Amino acid sequence: MKPTAAVLSVGNEVLRGSVVNTNAAFLGRELTGLGFEVISHAVCPDSQEAIRFRLGEILRRADAVFVMGGLGPTPDDVTREGVAAHFNVPLVFSEPQYRRLQKLYKRFGKRIPPLVKREAFYPENAKPLINRFGIALGFSIETSQKLVIALPGVPAELKSMFFDVVLPVLRKKYGKLLGSRKLVARMAGISEPDVMKRLGKDFFDEPFDFGIYPAPGEVTIRILAESAAVFSRVKRKIAARLKDRIYAWDETPLAGVIAQILKKKKKTLAVAESCTGGLLASKITAESGASAFFRGGTVAYHALVKKKLGVPGKLIQDHGEVSAQVAAQLALSVREKMESSYGIGITGIAGPGGGSSRKPVGLVYIGLATPDGKARAWKHLFWGERHQVQARAAMKALEHLWMAIR
Amino acid sequence: MKPTAAVLSVGNEVLRGSVVNTNAAFLGRELTGLGFEVISHAVCPDSQEAIRFRLGEILRRADAVFVMGGLGPTPDDVTREGVAAHFNVPLVFSEPQYRRLQKLYKRFGKRIPPLVKREAFYPENAKPLINRFGIALGFSIETSQKLVIALPGVPAELKSMFFDVVLPVLRKKYGKLLGSRKLVARMAGISEPDVMKRLGKDFFDEPFDFGIYPAPGEVTIRILAESAAVFSRVKRKIAARLKDRIYAWDETPLAGVIAQILKKKKKTLAVAESCTGGLLASKITAESGASAFFRGGTVAYHALVKKKLGVPGKLIQDHGEVSAQVAAQLALSVREKMESSYGIGITGIAGPGGGSSRKPVGLVYIGLATPDGKARAWKHLFWGERHQVQARAAMKALEHLWMAIR
Repeated sequence: MKPTAAVLSVGNEVLRGSVVNTNAAFLGRELTGLGFEVISHAVCPDSQEAIRFRLGEILRRADAVFVMGGLGPTPDDVTREGVAAHFNVPLVFSEPQYRRLQKLYKRFGKRIPPLVKREAFYPENAKPLINRFGIALGFSIETSQKLVIALPGVPAELKSMFFDVVLPVLRKKYGKLLGSRKLVARMAGISEPDVMKRLGKDFFDEPFDFGIYPAPGEVTIRILAESAAVFSRVKRKIAARLKDRIYAWDETPLAGVIAQILKKKKKTLAVAESCTGGLLASKITAESGASAFFRGGTVAYHALVKKKLGVPGKLIQDHGEVSAQVAAQLALSVREKMESSYGIGITGIAGPGGGSSRKPVGLVYIGLATPDGKARAWKHLFWGERHQVQARAAMKALEHLWMAIR
Repeated sequence: MKPTAAVLSVGNEVLRGSVVNTNAAFLGRELTGLGFEVISHAVCPDSQEAIRFRLGEILRRADAVFVMGGLGPTPDDVTREGVAAHFNVPLVFSEPQYRRLQKLYKRFGKRIPPLVKREAFYPENAKPLINRFGIALGFSIETSQKLVIALPGVPAELKSMFFDVVLPVLRKKYGKLLGSRKLVARMAGISEPDVMKRLGKDFFDEPFDFGIYPAPGEVTIRILAESAAVFSRVKRKIAARLKDRIYAWDETPLAGVIAQILKKKKKTLAVAESCTGGLLASKITAESGASAFFRGGTVAYHALVKKKLGVPGKLIQDHGEVSAQVAAQLALSVREKMESSYGIGITGIAGPGGGSSRKPVGLVYIGLATPDGKARAWKHLFWGERHQVQARAAMKALEHLWMAIR
């Protein structure tokens, strides 16, 4: 029987949509991965009474509740008070925590602001959880049946505290229960329906949690299985039926997989982008250590820039800026100019403007130049808004490269 | 008295954090802007009983409830059933809706799959809401006191349906109540504490909702005021105290503001990026119509590419790749090469590797070349992880350009 978990986010800015609640997604992912069944996310306003009420309501249904946000120093941060009110205990002041904060400010040559004194208070029945990455103190409250964990809402602090101080608490309390194994398979160049078709009906004859998540140009499968036997059988089936499309058995993005392969093979890459406008280069350089294989890129947005890169004006006149010939030439030229092993060229119409009946919005040509000095080009028609066309095109370019080097 | 609204998202994939709930943020923002008080977000699993229970619980507290997700054709989509169960009504089949779906499939030369028949059912007491952007039918249920709106969870469909078919329903039911005025001010190059300091204590002597939202390199203020008098006084105060930092009085991003200015002045732009790896170019080209002013960019990741761009090897030897001189030269070279009015050059250390005591991770030089053929460079030290340093550097580059052209 899985332990159940719930997430309670505190903050008017979340209710009003001024911030996207990535914290809830992070906790949902981590807790599910650990083997919790996440049964509820809730968001409530910065109100002591609202926090007290929602926490009580959720604790009736969940074993572990994670309260996020409202732990700052300003008067509208009342999570401490709301949680204490639920347990009907006072807040207590922690000298050591306050001295820790004083040291922290001293290190930056500052005196501790009076407001920050609030950060040293926590509910009497709680254990403080030290935050190495900020001033907001977290805390955990354990009863015979339940667990309440309060964490700051700043995503970077929440994440690092989760791995630092929360995981040990969870392992200690739920260690025996958290049995389930997590399987991840990331695929490129296949649609969600096709993944389901390939897996087939018999795939689902066994007891496991199955999730399938499409994103522009890729699909991710996540599976939770209690039994080791089921886990390995399921993994064998997935490998057998989808191997040719799977680029990672973990959460590594395709750009990261390509980075690993190119480094291993001591090959380099350069890209020339038109309609993706730098998105492909930024996907590649988002991975640290890209300098080991990524020579650079050109955003050849204007025809003039394409010519400078070495695309003959005649080629553009004869076939148009958006053509297989120009895509291939962009790949060849950037490879040569930047002296790389591989070159990618992208040209297309991201929209909303610039489309025609012959060359509609979403039409994208992707060229790939290989170490042998040759180039190929592929034609694609992507649907969606501008940012979707750009995202699908960048992802498809990575897919073509991956197919060529894997 | 503001009408209250609540958001109920349906889906295990949300609970498990496999998708970030951007829909809740979108609705929170739109509903707040319209003048609703958003009192709750909740997420529940794909279970008819869970939907029925949560909907009933939320309807006791909110005037309008927006149920998202679980309207797809597969058997695990049970929002229709859950909502109907709460109102204790059967589902009814809509011939016109089914014919609409048949036409839709026909247009793509397909026969309608049997599963999709489910998409033509909705609760007997509901009005269907047509989805021009997908097959999932939405619906609205109006009682004397309450309003329930069900929308598909696909973000693109949700957004377009909100403006298409939901807004009219809200205006009709709540028109008189939705009085509050929304004020937005976006600022670059100023920190959250400095904005608060400049606004001063007296600023908050009037009755209005105030929100301040920092993002890498910028701060956004959002204010809701019931009274027109308060609204204009507040706006005057903000203008007087922060004018020099405000780049937009609406949600337009800085890249969009720069696009407007450059188009108006008939000037063009080219960028040469190192540590931001294409992020700056992609921010600029994310705005449609960028081709009117954006010549292109170079991602000069490798020293070799910097040289090719026209940065003398000696300059790199004397001052290092990460230096004010190289940043300025990158700006000059790319401006010249791409024949643009302005050129931006960025060189720095995004980390996590590559830092030293003299040149630590986060050190970034930004160069700006102007139509007079001159260039300046600024030195910055950005904190945070790799993606944060990249985001702050790209934003700061836009800020320098904006200061020069506004």
